Amino acid sequence: MQDPVRVGLLGCGNVGAPLVRLLDENADRIAARAGVAIEVTRVAVRDLERRRDVKLSIDRFTTDAAAIVADPNIDIVVEVIGGLEPAGRLITEALEAGKPVVTANKELIARQGPELFETAARAGVDLLFEASVAGGIPLMRPLRESLAGDRIHRVTGIVNGTTNFILTRMADDASSFADALAEAQRLGYAEADPSADVDGDDAAAKAAIIATIAFGAQFHIGDVHTEGITGITDDDIASARLLGYVVKLVAVAEEIDHAVAVRVHPAMVPLHHPLAAVRDSFNAVLIEGEAVGELMLYGRGAGGGPSASAVLGDLIDAAHNLVSGAKGATIVGLTDARVRPIGDLESQFYLLVEVADRPGVLAAIAQVFGDHGVSIQSMEQRGLGADARLMFVTHRARESDLRATVEALREVEPVHRVGSVLRVMGDVR
Amino acid sequence: MQDPVRVGLLGCGNVGAPLVRLLDENADRIAARAGVAIEVTRVAVRDLERRRDVKLSIDRFTTDAAAIVADPNIDIVVEVIGGLEPAGRLITEALEAGKPVVTANKELIARQGPELFETAARAGVDLLFEASVAGGIPLMRPLRESLAGDRIHRVTGIVNGTTNFILTRMADDASSFADALAEAQRLGYAEADPSADVDGDDAAAKAAIIATIAFGAQFHIGDVHTEGITGITDDDIASARLLGYVVKLVAVAEEIDHAVAVRVHPAMVPLHHPLAAVRDSFNAVLIEGEAVGELMLYGRGAGGGPSASAVLGDLIDAAHNLVSGAKGATIVGLTDARVRPIGDLESQFYLLVEVADRPGVLAAIAQVFGDHGVSIQSMEQRGLGADARLMFVTHRARESDLRATVEALREVEPVHRVGSVLRVMGDVR
Repeated sequence: MQDPVRVGLLGCGNVGAPLVRLLDENADRIAARAGVAIEVTRVAVRDLERRRDVKLSIDRFTTDAAAIVADPNIDIVVEVIGGLEPAGRLITEALEAGKPVVTANKELIARQGPELFETAARAGVDLLFEASVAGGIPLMRPLRESLAGDRIHRVTGIVNGTTNFILTRMADDASSFADALAEAQRLGYAEADPSADVDGDDAAAKAAIIATIAFGAQFHIGDVHTEGITGITDDDIASARLLGYVVKLVAVAEEIDHAVAVRVHPAMVPLHHPLAAVRDSFNAVLIEGEAVGELMLYGRGAGGGPSASAVLGDLIDAAHNLVSGAKGATIVGLTDARVRPIGDLESQFYLLVEVADRPGVLAAIAQVFGDHGVSIQSMEQRGLGADARLMFVTHRARESDLRATVEALREVEPVHRVGSVLRVMGDVR
Repeated sequence: MQDPVRVGLLGCGNVGAPLVRLLDENADRIAARAGVAIEVTRVAVRDLERRRDVKLSIDRFTTDAAAIVADPNIDIVVEVIGGLEPAGRLITEALEAGKPVVTANKELIARQGPELFETAARAGVDLLFEASVAGGIPLMRPLRESLAGDRIHRVTGIVNGTTNFILTRMADDASSFADALAEAQRLGYAEADPSADVDGDDAAAKAAIIATIAFGAQFHIGDVHTEGITGITDDDIASARLLGYVVKLVAVAEEIDHAVAVRVHPAMVPLHHPLAAVRDSFNAVLIEGEAVGELMLYGRGAGGGPSASAVLGDLIDAAHNLVSGAKGATIVGLTDARVRPIGDLESQFYLLVEVADRPGVLAAIAQVFGDHGVSIQSMEQRGLGADARLMFVTHRARESDLRATVEALREVEPVHRVGSVLRVMGDVR
């Protein structure tokens, strides 16, 4: 009998504890699949006293993560601590010591992914990170393996469950943003400080990882044009319903003329679009490829169970590669990113304009659109007199032209305010 | 420079030709991913004269598939001929000669999969078949790799695009089954002889493969309880709309008390169920796992491009394994299938009962349900007098009890006819 593969687990919380339970409960199946038994040999935690519902004797636990990484008895390191440091240093040391690493660390991969991939490639070992994007949804593996020979045009994802929950509540219950956020916090979907979610930064980190893997180039979180959902009002939600859309926070990475645009922003999604039906805290990613056409992957994007499932899939892979002597499936040859500026992008737009409704107003506004080369597809008016609101949907227009239009609209006398400006998502090809 | 991996391609039609084009157009990316260039060295076709839109010189083509399999210069065999023979014999010979095989052959894997997996395992080489189920949708790889350590409870798929197209047309345009089928044939979605699709046999083959991989046991197509859609009427479609459902042909494999029920049948799917939004010729597969929760994979289930994309993903994998010296990812340890008899299953049911509407009818019918231990959740009547139709939805009932109820209903005097009996799909857990 071959010796088991010995895993050093860094972190035993929300993801680590269910991972240990899965390894225990499904040990036979896992060993059959990996070609070797997998044993959690040592576990690093911050607090040795905390009760954890895992069947591991207390002498396997330590507070010294670095000692686990350096331990010659440890074959594979699994990092589920999160955050940039000490996780980044620990992973680098493990890779340099020739140990495959499995991580769920989105922040780290989004910020230091390309450097870590190079370290892994130099050492010739696996660095796997399926759980870092969209939790339990297999996304990295399909992008890297199933679609490896296809040409990907665009990836569009709902990759933040908190904001999707908030937007679903606003649409279903006519809740305000504040009430929906409070409900998300009560249910544990949102943190006490929700800014990373509602400002779009969490989605932006995932967008950078997706763009890197889908297009084989080094994208960092700073390359992602990011807008959150804090400005979304009840009016926008109502307008969306009226016009046949639903508001979603989307992460988009698409190749246009050999440059890749990566962005996170709320968008009006047509009701019959596959992403429109993604509700509550679910995540989904729509991949559009040359040969495969449209492919959507849908599931639980967060939570201990789904993330542990994804980490375990990677761990089995790493263990199988280790004992079968396969070369690590390293990510090499990433090119420098050619980022397409957001101002160059074209899309349809929705605008909410608050005006005093008097004769000639629409003509004055339409003139402003026309002056900037932006053509109007539809207009709906709600309210009358001093409190009229005009909802415009434009034809496709350049982002920079649209911005100039908005600036100019603010100068039109009967315009009280230009409210939300949202991109309108086109149909799937 | 390492020599390229030399591929022998059996078949150059609907899937083979786009595969050759993908290999040509994305050669650099593919070589980077596989760790080696991939060359289509020889191609077996039935008719050398037929024009094919591929950039391969004519001297690579032959009509002798067996010679390609036996050729010591060929490293990997890709089979996209389809059908049981000669494909089965060719694949067996290739595996026995130590050559990895990639196939898109659903019939063959559904009928002889376990035997072929054993042959591959004995030879220690890959047998990959992602394209055999749900075309371009990555399904085998997620089931075998991403979810390898999870416990799968149930897999529910819409895996036949032809019937989904027909049912979508019936629902959207109030087409009859015959008209929708004729439209599917006109558009090339259905064969001149559509029986394999509309009788559910194509979906049953895929269900057998899904059950085998998801539950690690040998399921054959004969283990699949199969009902097609030829009996679905306009009335059923209208009832579904009225009651908040949509009719879909579903393939289900689920583990209940250590036995697996595998079946294909039309079902009433609740409108808010993720599979309800799968329209036209699209496919989707919903996986319910212990840790991962719900996971849905959605895309194009058929067509040359999507299937070629899936074959290419497998081919890159096989080439990578070959040059990196990895052991083939063989499927071993399949147990004998414990098939749960359909009569033991429980679900909710929809029944359409045509009656002469006169006093006491409903009481008489309700009595029959009650006598067989089947309880009624809801009843709607349409039409009046001699042509009344009663639509029942039952609470959960055993299939065998429901069948006995239907038999007994046929003996009730004012009942003209018991029309469709459809299972009603429950909510996702």
